[in-house]
Amino acid sequence: MTAKAGPLNLITDVAGLRVGNASDDTIKTGATVLLGDAPFTAGVHVMGGAPGTRETDLLSPDKTVQQVDALVLSGGSAFGLDAASGVADALRAEGRGFAVGDQRVPIVPAAILFDLLNGGKKDWAENPYKRLGAEALASATPSFACGSVGAGTGATTANLKGGLGSASLVLPSGHTVGALVAVNALGSAVVGDGPQFWAAPFEIGDEFGGLGVASAYPDVHLPETKLSQHANTTIGIVATDAALTQAQCTRLATAAHDGFARALVPSHTPMDGDLIFAASTGAHEMQNPLADALLLGHAAATCMARAIARAVFAATHSDTDTRPCWSSLAP
Amino acid sequence: MTAKAGPLNLITDVAGLRVGNASDDTIKTGATVLLGDAPFTAGVHVMGGAPGTRETDLLSPDKTVQQVDALVLSGGSAFGLDAASGVADALRAEGRGFAVGDQRVPIVPAAILFDLLNGGKKDWAENPYKRLGAEALASATPSFACGSVGAGTGATTANLKGGLGSASLVLPSGHTVGALVAVNALGSAVVGDGPQFWAAPFEIGDEFGGLGVASAYPDVHLPETKLSQHANTTIGIVATDAALTQAQCTRLATAAHDGFARALVPSHTPMDGDLIFAASTGAHEMQNPLADALLLGHAAATCMARAIARAVFAATHSDTDTRPCWSSLAP
Repeated sequence: MTAKAGPLNLITDVAGLRVGNASDDTIKTGATVLLGDAPFTAGVHVMGGAPGTRETDLLSPDKTVQQVDALVLSGGSAFGLDAASGVADALRAEGRGFAVGDQRVPIVPAAILFDLLNGGKKDWAENPYKRLGAEALASATPSFACGSVGAGTGATTANLKGGLGSASLVLPSGHTVGALVAVNALGSAVVGDGPQFWAAPFEIGDEFGGLGVASAYPDVHLPETKLSQHANTTIGIVATDAALTQAQCTRLATAAHDGFARALVPSHTPMDGDLIFAASTGAHEMQNPLADALLLGHAAATCMARAIARAVFAATHSDTDTRPCWSSLAP
Repeated sequence: MTAKAGPLNLITDVAGLRVGNASDDTIKTGATVLLGDAPFTAGVHVMGGAPGTRETDLLSPDKTVQQVDALVLSGGSAFGLDAASGVADALRAEGRGFAVGDQRVPIVPAAILFDLLNGGKKDWAENPYKRLGAEALASATPSFACGSVGAGTGATTANLKGGLGSASLVLPSGHTVGALVAVNALGSAVVGDGPQFWAAPFEIGDEFGGLGVASAYPDVHLPETKLSQHANTTIGIVATDAALTQAQCTRLATAAHDGFARALVPSHTPMDGDLIFAASTGAHEMQNPLADALLLGHAAATCMARAIARAVFAATHSDTDTRPCWSSLAP
């Protein structure tokens, strides 16, 4: 049997998940929300040296709350953590959240990327991210656009504009795996100055241009980076309908980091806050836990690599850009 | 400036480090020791789902002992942890170790790989690994062979024999980085059934055959593995002469895992005990800590990817092999 992308080639091919994006093109930033129709099990693995997070400590197998209501990716550095506050307040208004007596406490882990020096107008009087979080939540649907939207609105890589990307895979076991990522990497998603993506070996069809692998690999040991711009961090989510425990979600998040390594060079640097959440809706039990967990982890890694390439591939121009779009390189 | 391999293209291009290997070709296993002329700072990052380790808890920035005397990689699954006991006893006899009153306690963190089902004769009456550890230590020299030696003696990958590998890189800053790895991966180091290595984009010269990248990428989403053989785990060490704190060594070990992801598909599975130690001899201060740490981490990842390919490239035949050697595929 072969593996193929799901019908949308988005993380929302995992049934029961929706994604909402909000963008502010003046500030040149935004927020992205992954919302479950019902609470879902989640884990996290942080591998970057400069993370910015909220509610990640509860995502451990020994902690009491095992499920979350939503996951948030946001621009704005530490200010962007307010996006999760906007989501939590809105979910509370809908009566959603972890029940404690007659109170409901929405559980909304979040991670941010640094886009404060990307050419946008950053002189806000009031932190805009709470509003962006609420707007993203209100727009959550199964279908959504990739590129310069949501948390990827103002994102950059070493030599090209970054963005928001997603991809999915349906395994022979019937389980679906998807990835969602905001690519703001210190490193590069393409090989040298060319249009070929590092993730090319994992491309399905022409989902990011179909150009195949690069023929030459210049400067791979001393790659171009945007170290001096201090604009960094790739944050993502992998999701599946396989029924995973919180501990198994943690392992899925760990495996998915291989997708960062394969799609971005360099990756996981001391200046990146690279982090991956993993989510399980629990709809379908694993029939063969060892073999299924192995392939789910690998699929999470390959979906993540593909989602990273698709983010950069789909980025669109803005007049204040500090980096060209991938489309300007296209043959 | 360009980056180039060190004179030996081995981890021992980092001055002050020696490597010793001991092999038992009947049991088809062995042990590898990285020894410092003086104690060195060390860190670790575990990413596999099935690790086997000793003395890794002390390799944290908040723990009191910040330096170690040696690092051990061994076959033998949990039995192989005895290799570190053999090393510690021998170092004690030499008067080496952490001083506590008039006692010396050698600090010897270790990790093992599973090679108990590799065709070797495993009916030992007495655990052989303490002896192998002592023999490896006694043979420690700056120059050593790669391939079917030491901890890589009986190692395998999904479709080819594994082995012991090493590589080094000299950075424009003058710092040297090296990697040492025993490759016993569940996944594969080559693309499909061909001789091209996943690590090909990072090859320097023809250090693992010079065949370049593969032109086709079959089965990358549903790769061949040796799941049913339960023979797994890739364990490695990255080292540098840059003066790093224990915390910076931990980050170097984390970054180096990208080398596993780029050289092995799949990697970091639930059945692999994938782990990397990082070592700093401290000989040369960093002049530009941010930029140097970034390039050191990237070099650790690319050296590790190259060392993995060199391990499989150098494997040699044994009559009890369960996998062919890479040389049987060579054009």
